[in-house]
Amino acid sequence: MQPADARGLKGAAQAEALAAGVLAGDRLAVARAISRVESEQPEAHALLAALHAHTGRAHIVGVTGAPGSGKSTLVTALAQCYRAAGLTVGILAVDPSSPFTGGAVLGDRVRMSALSGDSGVFIRSMATRGSLGGLSKSTGEAVSILDAAGFERILVETVGVGQAEIDIAATAHTTLVVEAPGMGDEVQAIKAGILEIADILVVNKADRTGADRTVRALQLALEMENSGGKTIRHHGQLMRFGPRRPASEPEAPDDARKRSAWRVPICKTVAADGTGVEEVRAQIEAHREWLLASDAMAHRQQVRAAHRIEAILRAEIHRRILARLPADGIQAAVDEVTSLKLDPYTAAARLLNRFDSSD
Amino acid sequence: MQPADARGLKGAAQAEALAAGVLAGDRLAVARAISRVESEQPEAHALLAALHAHTGRAHIVGVTGAPGSGKSTLVTALAQCYRAAGLTVGILAVDPSSPFTGGAVLGDRVRMSALSGDSGVFIRSMATRGSLGGLSKSTGEAVSILDAAGFERILVETVGVGQAEIDIAATAHTTLVVEAPGMGDEVQAIKAGILEIADILVVNKADRTGADRTVRALQLALEMENSGGKTIRHHGQLMRFGPRRPASEPEAPDDARKRSAWRVPICKTVAADGTGVEEVRAQIEAHREWLLASDAMAHRQQVRAAHRIEAILRAEIHRRILARLPADGIQAAVDEVTSLKLDPYTAAARLLNRFDSSD
Repeated sequence: MQPADARGLKGAAQAEALAAGVLAGDRLAVARAISRVESEQPEAHALLAALHAHTGRAHIVGVTGAPGSGKSTLVTALAQCYRAAGLTVGILAVDPSSPFTGGAVLGDRVRMSALSGDSGVFIRSMATRGSLGGLSKSTGEAVSILDAAGFERILVETVGVGQAEIDIAATAHTTLVVEAPGMGDEVQAIKAGILEIADILVVNKADRTGADRTVRALQLALEMENSGGKTIRHHGQLMRFGPRRPASEPEAPDDARKRSAWRVPICKTVAADGTGVEEVRAQIEAHREWLLASDAMAHRQQVRAAHRIEAILRAEIHRRILARLPADGIQAAVDEVTSLKLDPYTAAARLLNRFDSSD
Repeated sequence: MQPADARGLKGAAQAEALAAGVLAGDRLAVARAISRVESEQPEAHALLAALHAHTGRAHIVGVTGAPGSGKSTLVTALAQCYRAAGLTVGILAVDPSSPFTGGAVLGDRVRMSALSGDSGVFIRSMATRGSLGGLSKSTGEAVSILDAAGFERILVETVGVGQAEIDIAATAHTTLVVEAPGMGDEVQAIKAGILEIADILVVNKADRTGADRTVRALQLALEMENSGGKTIRHHGQLMRFGPRRPASEPEAPDDARKRSAWRVPICKTVAADGTGVEEVRAQIEAHREWLLASDAMAHRQQVRAAHRIEAILRAEIHRRILARLPADGIQAAVDEVTSLKLDPYTAAARLLNRFDSSD
């Protein structure tokens, strides 16, 4: 994070021009801006700083679920519903198995082409490799760019596994978890963690046998979750350290009431032919209304901000470590650990001592 | 990373006793040791330091693939094959959808029970939530504990998505990628990244229709990969910064020859009834022989060491940030970002200034 004056006037001027383009809704500027944050170019900071005051208008919808659940098809159909309702839509695919990301089979491409050529839709896939923590950071930044560009609904497609769960919960206002019948263990998977981030559950491919069984399993899992009293959702890492109510302290009855007022609906869809998708859209809008009416929206915005700040801190600290550690020191440490002369903790401690003393 | 003398004699003595238990192969000690690294308790450092010199004997096998591919069933069947061959097996499940992790349907539990009561098998599921980067770190550490305890083959089951791909490739000596027919996009998903970490491809549920089509698609994808000349595998993040040959520099013909000598096989299995699993075991052993005969094993050990050191550095720096940043400062930053007064980069820079000046 270089100071602005060290970054050079050219970079600052470019960032300013790009920000103006994004704010004017210029598609090429939006695409370029996302590329800048994705490749972590220095002027990305100035760009995002310039855009930040113009964000906060879009409603951000996370769409997550196992590969094969038909997330991408649902996202496409949802975007069509929103367009029919007169709203503009940005789509970010953060999923290596997503057809948006290049792995499309023919049918998906045909369905997606329904969106192409519509200036009210912007589709972008995000690279899922790259620097550590970079995925979460650049996705949050791409969302901000689409928000500043005036897209009214932003759909973010991710695979719901591990860290991606935490990231999507901390990035989206409304999180959809998509299931499909006949995937057996997937209903179990949901119980193991994905369920607690869901604001809306979707059973896609509902024309397949077993759809009702999947719905019942999800209902049961929801009831179990509710009876377990799990009320704290969407908590970012950094937020735990803020002065807010710690998890051990019981929440005020009023807070609990507001929070428990949203009952997670289960929608059945056949996204491939559009069946049930309008109902999903209606539920997203209902959830948005609920968030705005309660204090939940303010809470989610705070979690989102904390998550973004933390991602930046982490990336910056990581950059500093790699920049300051002498390469020969790293290799020496790796060699000593490999030859069993040194354990990784002692090796890391020695590297950190060199890092600290180079401050 | 506190110095040893600050940690207290009690913790050090406990770590020593636990290390002795692990080295003696005491199952309770192994279970406790893994719990210590999972919950990141201070004595975990001393424990791992004491164990490190006794590691390096186990062969580590990563098993990855989409939910529904039957990874857990394959891992169970593989463990049975290894037991029949007289080798001891440790199993780590790092997958929220794994039956090992608690999401078992009845059939899986029955199959897994074939392993229970066998002192030559140790099964453990790892929590997939927790501190950032903690998953990768604690998995690597649990592998070391099982290694030091004398388990000869360690099977690590993960979902093959995003960061988990990089982690498993950097943790395992041999990586299996498991597919199942009829999952449509999954073959595409493999092209998008999972394929390049595979040492062995397994088409499980091969009695289903479409198995041969999946095999052909994988063969085609492998040929495309080979013709693309992608030769550098299993590169950890930190290794990029070492003095080793940079990616842009062509590798020596001799290195290229040794590396290209391993041709990724495609195995067909029906893990549920054991069909084809012995062949998978044979291929793992063949890959192990190849690694040991070429310089590839040394390279993988280096990547593994670099990955572990980096995970420790990252966790430690992250801990320092959170410990030193004043809680009111974080909340103030979050509030300013939420109210659009400050962008996240400027907020993060201000927090870092406070962090730096508190050094």
